[in-house]
Amino acid sequence: MAAIKVHGNPLSTASMRVLATVYEKEIDHEFVFVDMRAGEHKKEHFLSLNPFGQLPALEDGDLKLFESRAINKYIACEYADKGTQLIYQDSKMMAITSVWMEVEAQQYDPVASKLGWELAIKPLLGMSTDTAVVEENEAKLAKVLDVYESRLAQSKHLGGDCFTLADLHHLPTLHYLFGTQVKKLFDSRPHVSVWVADITARPAWLKVLALQSQQ
Amino acid sequence: MAAIKVHGNPLSTASMRVLATVYEKEIDHEFVFVDMRAGEHKKEHFLSLNPFGQLPALEDGDLKLFESRAINKYIACEYADKGTQLIYQDSKMMAITSVWMEVEAQQYDPVASKLGWELAIKPLLGMSTDTAVVEENEAKLAKVLDVYESRLAQSKHLGGDCFTLADLHHLPTLHYLFGTQVKKLFDSRPHVSVWVADITARPAWLKVLALQSQQ
Repeated sequence: MAAIKVHGNPLSTASMRVLATVYEKEIDHEFVFVDMRAGEHKKEHFLSLNPFGQLPALEDGDLKLFESRAINKYIACEYADKGTQLIYQDSKMMAITSVWMEVEAQQYDPVASKLGWELAIKPLLGMSTDTAVVEENEAKLAKVLDVYESRLAQSKHLGGDCFTLADLHHLPTLHYLFGTQVKKLFDSRPHVSVWVADITARPAWLKVLALQSQQ
Repeated sequence: MAAIKVHGNPLSTASMRVLATVYEKEIDHEFVFVDMRAGEHKKEHFLSLNPFGQLPALEDGDLKLFESRAINKYIACEYADKGTQLIYQDSKMMAITSVWMEVEAQQYDPVASKLGWELAIKPLLGMSTDTAVVEENEAKLAKVLDVYESRLAQSKHLGGDCFTLADLHHLPTLHYLFGTQVKKLFDSRPHVSVWVADITARPAWLKVLALQSQQ
């Protein structure tokens, strides 16, 4: 029996974020499918893993964790000797990487998630896209990506020259946004464009997409 | 000359978050006041410290950092031997603390910040409070605090029995919300209420408030 259990759904961006990390680290694990359509994430068993009723959750022996970014930091530290190094050992490089992990969580994700909802998810559910929300958040995303363009002109990845969690955490929302009109905001910035092509081609990420396509 | 420079403004919640950490760690530092009313945070010098033009920023020798939560993690790790221990050395206790740091950032802060803006800041600026936004976010905050109440029935603080960054990160928004009608949501939950009384009475936090009152 695998020591690690990932409870999630390959359609949820936060679940995809953790799966990408597990694949990068090449860790033996069990994926426990949580049926969101059946509301399993709001039922007692799942609420005992995450009281907020949101995917994913992790079990590693008797340790229970939730919040995808916290799970990923734990895996990257605890399994430092396995697979891809997703954090730096040097304290100053790690501090800079932490800054860009916070940038993803605080500056990029709130805007990217709103756009993903309006442009990718709502049409799937037969709901109408709110064009005012799209316009406002496209302008915000453009400003965030201007900062990324400057940063990526200085280093290959956001934290430094190595691929880290700071890059990986962007993958799920990038995937949804690239099927929408927002793709142009990434394509029009040369360094951002190269960075996106690089990180979305990683074998671990392709495995996440393969798992998703089986659903 | 102090090695550490904190660039901020005592009225900004993110600046207060970093100042609380610096005081808890009892680190020799220089506070560089950034005049937000004069728009200094949008001018070239400050943008070279934080390209997003948001307070605060930190300089430690040649290391430049921004994003308050990333700054705090760096200080807590780099100055582990000074002042209050704000993180755990044990990897599993630290993983659990990271979960609650993410809960603050992802579940609590977006709601608390919206309520702070509507109920504390807008009235100061002579703007009208949007009661629909208040109602929606009070309901969301009540649900978050229900989870906190269960958690704080099990351990004295969010990460475990020790005060950590997971608790400290709440202080600035708590301070603004306690001057509003939202205070009742904290007061009505016994364990949350004891936790708030405990963390807001810390000497390091009282020093932040004293600095603010001098402005």
